[in-house]
Parts: sequence; C-alpha cells; structure tokens
Amino acid sequence: MRVEIWSDIACPWCYIGKARFEKGLAAFAHRDEVEVVHRSFELDPSRAKHDTAPVVEMLAKKYGRTLDEARAMEEHVASNARSEGLGYRTEGRDHGSTFDIHRLLHLARARGRQDELLDLAYRANFAEERSVFDAEVLVDLAAEAGLDADEARAVLTDEDAYADDVRTDEREAAELGATGVPFFVLDRRYGVSGGQPAEVFTQALEQAWQGRAITPIGAAAGACDADGSCEVPQA
Amino acid sequence: MRVEIWSDIACPWCYIGKARFEKGLAAFAHRDEVEVVHRSFELDPSRAKHDTAPVVEMLAKKYGRTLDEARAMEEHVASNARSEGLGYRTEGRDHGSTFDIHRLLHLARARGRQDELLDLAYRANFAEERSVFDAEVLVDLAAEAGLDADEARAVLTDEDAYADDVRTDEREAAELGATGVPFFVLDRRYGVSGGQPAEVFTQALEQAWQGRAITPIGAAAGACDADGSCEVPQA
Repeated sequence: MRVEIWSDIACPWCYIGKARFEKGLAAFAHRDEVEVVHRSFELDPSRAKHDTAPVVEMLAKKYGRTLDEARAMEEHVASNARSEGLGYRTEGRDHGSTFDIHRLLHLARARGRQDELLDLAYRANFAEERSVFDAEVLVDLAAEAGLDADEARAVLTDEDAYADDVRTDEREAAELGATGVPFFVLDRRYGVSGGQPAEVFTQALEQAWQGRAITPIGAAAGACDADGSCEVPQA
Repeated sequence: MRVEIWSDIACPWCYIGKARFEKGLAAFAHRDEVEVVHRSFELDPSRAKHDTAPVVEMLAKKYGRTLDEARAMEEHVASNARSEGLGYRTEGRDHGSTFDIHRLLHLARARGRQDELLDLAYRANFAEERSVFDAEVLVDLAAEAGLDADEARAVLTDEDAYADDVRTDEREAAELGATGVPFFVLDRRYGVSGGQPAEVFTQALEQAWQGRAITPIGAAAGACDADGSCEVPQA
C-alpha cells in the first residue's frame, strides 16, 4: 500500500500530523507493507525567495490580531505539538518561501533519504534555532540526512533543479481536491485531511487495506500464467 | 497517476505488452503525468539459479508437444512481437531463473534507471544472442543502462540484496489477484491483464484518470489551508 503525504515545512499541523500518522501507522498490522512518499505543497507559493518575516508578526497581520493574540494562537498549536512529544518554539521562528526546501526534498527522495530530511527540517524549523530559509542551514540538514553536501548545494544553486517536480506535486494536490495540508492519500483512493488523531490514521489504513479490490479492464489477452504457460486465449 | 507493471523478463507477452502499453500511453493526453514502476514476478520461482534449458525444449516438455510444435508456438508469439517492431529469436534462447534479474531491476529503480535496464534485458533475452542468465551479461546490461558496473556486480554477488523487494512485489501481485503477467495496475484501482492492444491501455488510462475521486475519511482536524491560515476547526 502506498501513502502520499502532501505537506509544507512551514505548516505546524503537517509537523504534528506526521507524528500522529506515524503513531497510527505503527498500530497498523500491515505497516511493513506501507510505502510513504512525501509530496510538495507551498502554503505561500507567491512569497519571494528571501522575503522572511517573524511568524508571530505574520500571524498578527494576517488575522488582524495583536501580537499577544498571535502568540496565544501559536501557544495553542505548540500545546498540540508538545502532546505528541515534539519540540515547538513560539518565538523567533520565521515564515518564508519553502520552494527550495521542497526541491531539496525531491533530491532526498531520489537518494532514498526523504523521510530523514523532512524530520530534520521540521525539527530545525519548529524546535531549534535554525532557519530553514538559509541555504547553508539546508545544506547542513541535507548532510545530516545522509545526502552529499555538494550535491545538495548544487541543487539549491540551480533554481530549475527539481522545480518541475514541486510544481507537479502541487498540481496533483489540486486535482485530487486538496485545499490544505497535511493531506494524506492512501492508494489514490482514500484521503485524510489534517493532523487527525493517530486512531483515525490507523482506521483509514485499515479501510484502505480492505478496499484494495482492483477493477479489471479489457478482455483476455496474451499472457504468461503463474504456472509458466504463455498462450493466447482463444477468441 | 501511477501505473505499476508486474512482469517477468522470461515472459514474451510482457515484452510485447510493454511495447503495446507504451504505444497506448503515448496516445493518452495526460501521459506526462503518469509514473510507471516495474514490479517483480517470476514465472518459474522454484527454478534453481544455474538451471537453464533451451526454451523450445522446455515448451515441448511442458506441453507434451514435439519440438516442431513447440517451435510453431514460439513462431506465433514471435509474429506478435514483430508486428510491434520488436526483434524475436525463436531458436537458441534459454529459460532459467529470473530472480537475479529482478534484484538488479530493483537496484536500477533505486538509481532511476529501471526502465532502461528492463528494455535492455528484454532485448538481450528475446532479440539478441545474449543470455540474461549469465551474471557478466547482466553486469554489462546494467552498465549500458547507466548503472555503476561494480555496484551491479556487488548486488548480483550478494544474494540477499533486494531479495526482499522481489518477494514483496510477488506477494503484492498475489494480494491484488494477479494470476499471470504482464499485470498492469493503475492507481491501485484498475487492473489490465495481458499484452492487450494499445487502444485498451489508452482506454484504461482514460478510465482511471476520470475515476480518480478520493473518498475522504475522518472529521475536520487541525490543518493549514491554501490561503496560509492554520487553525483548529471548532467542534
């Protein structure tokens, strides 16, 4: 079974949702037969590359609240994160363009290190004093995830590298009806939106597992059977 | 959209079916949004590693036919292959264990060279005087496909390398109801068996494309919307 997770590194519910999904997956009997792929989704796709701003200020401006009210919103999210055992800073964190991080996550996927890099990037962004909007921090995270630092730097420098992969993921999310993230798609058949409780993920995995029937298309045609015989069916 | 193709290098209908699928895919409007993954299926899983036999003799024995009758069976398959522009030898080809080739195809997948290696292996087996049951031929094919020859040799030497991936593919084929190959699965939702005409593949791709609706599971939960807002829905 295959689970695709659309998320953005700047999305706290994606950070929390990933932990809850993994807890739900751990309780699923067929967990070893589940392949997880992370896909790109930018919450703020029009944001310029170097345009960063403190999260609390961005929230206050966006929702027309005071800084104290914005901090309270962040505290609410932080309490959800902490209840999952995740670190969460409510001050000093920046908001910015995540396009480059998504490109790097595609390189990591090609090298079999996507999950490692995503976990490190979430931790850097939400729990540590490291800016994921700084290219050198991203190179360090890539190296920590087991990627080649020079290759990571080359991808970050070449703005076209994996750019189409990011855009393809985003177009697919829209086609599948995603209006936000995290968005979990099981075998392209069932969808789970948001940072649901772990039990919901386990239940969704069980439902998708049971619903894996394949609808056949086409009449009989030349094939080789499991007994090794290869013949053309008679019309 | 994702198409998974279960096949065996020793299966002539897989060789023919791949060409027909690719022709069908070329006629599909959203072909650039289709990801193709090749999965393992052994027609003769109990065959020992070095136990090879001429195909025509194997066919005669299997079906209780004369060698001439077995040759006629092969000629029939060959005419189907040739009508797709594929080379096909009916003499001198061996039958044997394909387990090592499947392991190598998994390495190729990890390195982004799976389709290249599969095409080269099919051509070597069906159209050329090269035995895919010879490890050195496999190393050469891997190098031609753009893999590192030393890495390919190391995988072939280590009998555990990618062995679980082959077995997982085979278990999944059984779970999905495959009784033979080629077996094409579109988004884990639709299945096409056998080397169907190209038009059937185009039609199946169109049907799967239209049927991509996702069934939602779970109530509203904390999420970040595409407008960038991250809030918890009120109960």
